[in-house]
Amino acid sequence: MRRIRITVAYDGTRYHGWQVQPGLATIQSELERVLSDIDNRPVQVAGSGRTDAGVHAAGQVAAFDLENRLPCPNLKKAMNRILPGDIRILDAAEADPAFHPRFDATSKTYEYRIWRAEVCPPMRRLYTFHFPYPLDEAAMIAAAPLLEGEHDFSAFAASDEKDELGRSKVRTIFSSRLFRDGDELVYQVRGSGFLKHMVRIIVGTLKEVGKGNLDAAGIAARLDPTYAGKAGPAAPARGLCLLRVEYSSGPAC
Amino acid sequence: MRRIRITVAYDGTRYHGWQVQPGLATIQSELERVLSDIDNRPVQVAGSGRTDAGVHAAGQVAAFDLENRLPCPNLKKAMNRILPGDIRILDAAEADPAFHPRFDATSKTYEYRIWRAEVCPPMRRLYTFHFPYPLDEAAMIAAAPLLEGEHDFSAFAASDEKDELGRSKVRTIFSSRLFRDGDELVYQVRGSGFLKHMVRIIVGTLKEVGKGNLDAAGIAARLDPTYAGKAGPAAPARGLCLLRVEYSSGPAC
Repeated sequence: MRRIRITVAYDGTRYHGWQVQPGLATIQSELERVLSDIDNRPVQVAGSGRTDAGVHAAGQVAAFDLENRLPCPNLKKAMNRILPGDIRILDAAEADPAFHPRFDATSKTYEYRIWRAEVCPPMRRLYTFHFPYPLDEAAMIAAAPLLEGEHDFSAFAASDEKDELGRSKVRTIFSSRLFRDGDELVYQVRGSGFLKHMVRIIVGTLKEVGKGNLDAAGIAARLDPTYAGKAGPAAPARGLCLLRVEYSSGPAC
Repeated sequence: MRRIRITVAYDGTRYHGWQVQPGLATIQSELERVLSDIDNRPVQVAGSGRTDAGVHAAGQVAAFDLENRLPCPNLKKAMNRILPGDIRILDAAEADPAFHPRFDATSKTYEYRIWRAEVCPPMRRLYTFHFPYPLDEAAMIAAAPLLEGEHDFSAFAASDEKDELGRSKVRTIFSSRLFRDGDELVYQVRGSGFLKHMVRIIVGTLKEVGKGNLDAAGIAARLDPTYAGKAGPAAPARGLCLLRVEYSSGPAC
């Protein structure tokens, strides 16, 4: 048995997120279906983390064990031949048998795109959040780095995020930046890990700053562990993309 | 009654082309449905030309007559509010009552994109033709300008293109260029007009050059009015996009 690490890109539009759910199309279940087919036995796939329904990925990382001795380049080709075109294997490599894509990850980078012009081009509509209404973008750009550092992000987690005992909501954000890219306002965030809906709630909160409903002090208050409410509304899934997952050491292929 | 000229962008993926066909979703029928709704009477829309099923547009031009006195910017907004997100009105302007988007067009520009890398990113899959196999791109790039000039393009027309009496297959191509854009091979062609499937057959023919099945003499032979066969296979619709339509005079808004 060998452990394989893959890098996966997907268009999340028609999927109910990453995680297997009975009777629903998910990225994980598509990968498991294809690998079970290749290995002639049920294969389980572990991801670096879940992505929500409609969220995209340019570089999700996952791992699985395989009996089949197919060389990695051929395995990648075989998977891409069977998978639907909206899920693509970018890389497949031998990994240490102890490698775990979730526990070994040292950082993740997400990107959120907001289309600011009056009309959103048809070919971009599934990959950006169209919001052509007034926003104080300078205030949002100035507020974005306030999220950096180690904070309790409880206010930035989905309300149904389970409050398991001992499960800390403290995360470290290494970099949190907002910038303009043509007609788009782009938010890029790199952190040690993210809670459910966290990036989308950060973007929704920055949007509140842009609307003048919130200032720097309001952001600071929401990062205080004693803050009881929710930081802001979650921005729609379609604008979000998991860009990459980093590990301290690369694969040993 | 006023005549309005619109510029339309669309993702052709889920449409059976431009032209109205009973019981099928087409761009023209979507526009007519929305305008008839706005004008409370049947409105007919004329386009600069048809696009095939699955072909996209960044700047198709169309025109129609309207009784409603809504100013153009509001009409554009109203149409975009009712239309599905894969059809967008980029511009609406008052036009001369004699303006006809097809007969008055002086040129059209199409673009065809071929994804050359091993893996096509999921978010590009509907807008490019994935062909990762060997091609002599230098030979294709050198052959592309051979199409320029006034020629009888009969060999580059769909076989079901009606051979109506007096309907000339002579067209003028002002510019025919192939170039690399990152992982894509891009063909851009600007001409006086195009026959059914013409751009896709030109691309299919250039691909034959890339495979070594055809040379400059072969292209010249296919442009000879006495050539009886078909120039080459048509490349898939998804890679094609109508970039813009030009007119000798702009709208009189």
